Amino acid sequence: MKPPVLLYACPTVDQKAWVEALNAAWPGIDIRLWPDTGDKAEIDYALVWKQPAGILSDLPNLKVIFSLGAGVEHVLTDTTLPADIPLVRMVDPTLVTGMVEFVVMQVLHYHRSMPDYAAQQRAGIWKQLPQLLPSERRIGILGMGELGAACAKALTGFGFDVAGWSRTAKDVPGVRGFAGREQLDAFLAQTDILVCLLPLTDQTRGILNRRTLSALPRGSYLINAARGGHLVEDDLIPLLDAGHLSAATLDVFAVEPLPVSHPFWTHPKITLVPHAAALTHPGTASRIVAANIDRHRRGEPLHNVVDRTRGY
Amino acid sequence: MKPPVLLYACPTVDQKAWVEALNAAWPGIDIRLWPDTGDKAEIDYALVWKQPAGILSDLPNLKVIFSLGAGVEHVLTDTTLPADIPLVRMVDPTLVTGMVEFVVMQVLHYHRSMPDYAAQQRAGIWKQLPQLLPSERRIGILGMGELGAACAKALTGFGFDVAGWSRTAKDVPGVRGFAGREQLDAFLAQTDILVCLLPLTDQTRGILNRRTLSALPRGSYLINAARGGHLVEDDLIPLLDAGHLSAATLDVFAVEPLPVSHPFWTHPKITLVPHAAALTHPGTASRIVAANIDRHRRGEPLHNVVDRTRGY
Ligand SMILES: NC(=O)c1ccc[n+]([C@@H]2O[C@H](COP(=O)([O-])OP(=O)(O)OC[C@H]3O[C@@H](n4cnc5c(N)ncnc54)[C@H](OP(=O)(O)O)[C@@H]3O)[C@@H](O)[C@H]2O)c1
Ligand SMILES: NC(=O)c1ccc[n+]([C@@H]2O[C@H](COP(=O)([O-])OP(=O)(O)OC[C@H]3O[C@@H](n4cnc5c(N)ncnc54)[C@H](OP(=O)(O)O)[C@@H]3O)[C@@H](O)[C@H]2O)c1
Repeated sequence: MKPPVLLYACPTVDQKAWVEALNAAWPGIDIRLWPDTGDKAEIDYALVWKQPAGILSDLPNLKVIFSLGAGVEHVLTDTTLPADIPLVRMVDPTLVTGMVEFVVMQVLHYHRSMPDYAAQQRAGIWKQLPQLLPSERRIGILGMGELGAACAKALTGFGFDVAGWSRTAKDVPGVRGFAGREQLDAFLAQTDILVCLLPLTDQTRGILNRRTLSALPRGSYLINAARGGHLVEDDLIPLLDAGHLSAATLDVFAVEPLPVSHPFWTHPKITLVPHAAALTHPGTASRIVAANIDRHRRGEPLHNVVDRTRGY
Repeated sequence: MKPPVLLYACPTVDQKAWVEALNAAWPGIDIRLWPDTGDKAEIDYALVWKQPAGILSDLPNLKVIFSLGAGVEHVLTDTTLPADIPLVRMVDPTLVTGMVEFVVMQVLHYHRSMPDYAAQQRAGIWKQLPQLLPSERRIGILGMGELGAACAKALTGFGFDVAGWSRTAKDVPGVRGFAGREQLDAFLAQTDILVCLLPLTDQTRGILNRRTLSALPRGSYLINAARGGHLVEDDLIPLLDAGHLSAATLDVFAVEPLPVSHPFWTHPKITLVPHAAALTHPGTASRIVAANIDRHRRGEPLHNVVDRTRGY
């Protein structure tokens, strides 16, 4: 059996690291670096991240599309995407680890009043602030999938009072479960620190907006580590300035890189990270892609195939 | 049996919360608020934090001295302290929880390059920084007691490469153990983020100094959540300015409150917290004091008695 031919089409990602890692994970793999596709009929698989629209529609023997990231909305925006070819998303323990680190870090940062201590340091003020026990702090996680459930587990380990919201009802030990639109408001009303880990779909676009964020208790915190499209960006700053929200950590934005003139850059209550909450690690992720390619070549079912109607 | 008489002598601590909590933990307890001791011969127990020297030496029936904090050097500096009365330190799961939160938070803060991302945000720069896996980050913990061991456990849970240093050799699962002065340099040479959780004794005073901090690899980070006396304060800023240390989190200082003119307040690489890494929680800690009083009144051995020659 000849080695697999993989089209690599991730224009914004560090190509060298990926080529090395893919070669190590599947020795002999034939990698075509878009736009140098060579003979398009030879291409079996594609690994994509924000690929230009249309480039996957004229590959006659394409068998599987792999997303370099956990989210796939960037792939699905291509309306020419062949409908019958399976789309596989990235599920990688290293990606989960990275997200758990990021979410726990920022939850603790707010739980422990670090923005207030930083302000006190700037003002030369020595003053211990009241400290809640973790059991007195309610964390609400939007999205209880691979990432949300792992973050919930880590946060319950610290003793936080954790709730999760998902499409279908879940029974995660130690986590109060809410499901569906009809339970969203009840979920929000009992959340002190809101963490968004939803996929971006038609159902979740703009879910962080003036109405939903106003449903949080006064003084709450927002951590958006999912997608920029979840947040109605114009709604955030008025809520921060009015003190309804205490602070926000934003890793993702409607337009990335975030335009230089965007007010988020300089807002004192916003911590801004350049879409780095959980970076896909070429080493571990390449082995996961390679294992799925192997599975496919042996005729076994692929892992982590996206439900395209659901959008995740 | 008449209720116990407890002298409360913690001049810098919120008295109201403690009196309420002690009354709830031992209903009927007779609390004397220093300096209103009443008849000194009636006092059975003392709860102290940075008490004035000499006040414990003329209580003829004092049976046990309780420290409000985990560290006891503030009690032992009183040279008039009756030598034969047991001194009990604070060991409280809530205190441990607080310290684990603080240490994990600041370790993640450095591990995830948050100071660099903050600098990028101020400069309007969108750039993902290289990210080490947790297994590639070496955390070194000075002091593997109640607090150090709990932090080590939490950090191994995140996948960090953790080492601990203590007086006597330890065998903690997943933690590389170093012990004694002769292994200190080897421990430091393999530490990227150094966390100090030692008690302050004659042996540990000034242990964070130009020589030991220079033994860390270039670019390391320091987190001191133990006592100000562990750090030779004048040695820190030159090491930060020279880039040998990347940043430091300091919760404790030689003089507290830290004097307004102290250069730590304004140094851009120092995160300063006003001795709040782990606050003793009146509610949980009072129950622990009450349980120890009960044990003593039943003639059972006290828990967490300090070895005064060792100093902790
Ligand atoms: N910032 C970063 O660096 C970064 C890195 C990786 C991923 N991400 C983002 O994180 C997202 C989540 O990743 P994942 O691997 O955890 O996804 P996943 O395993 O597919 O989980 C998605 C979760 O969201 C829930 N959900 C989806 N649509 C919903 C709706 N309409 N209402 C309520 N709940 C809904 C799902 O509910 P059910 O369980 O009921 O299906 C599921 O619990 C990705 O899609 C991506 O956008 C960001
Ligand atoms: N900043 C805050 O808010 C805060 C709050 C609470 C406590 N603290 C500080 O944290 C300290 C530690 O508390 P803890 O409850 O973990 O104390 P602990 O249980 O007594 O543990 C002390 C640890 O330090 C080690 N050690 C002592 N002297 C040493 C020496 N000369 N060389 C090497 N190792 C030595 C001990 O080694 P062995 O195991 O071999 O005896 C032990 O592992 C307290 O003393 C206090 O100063 C700070």
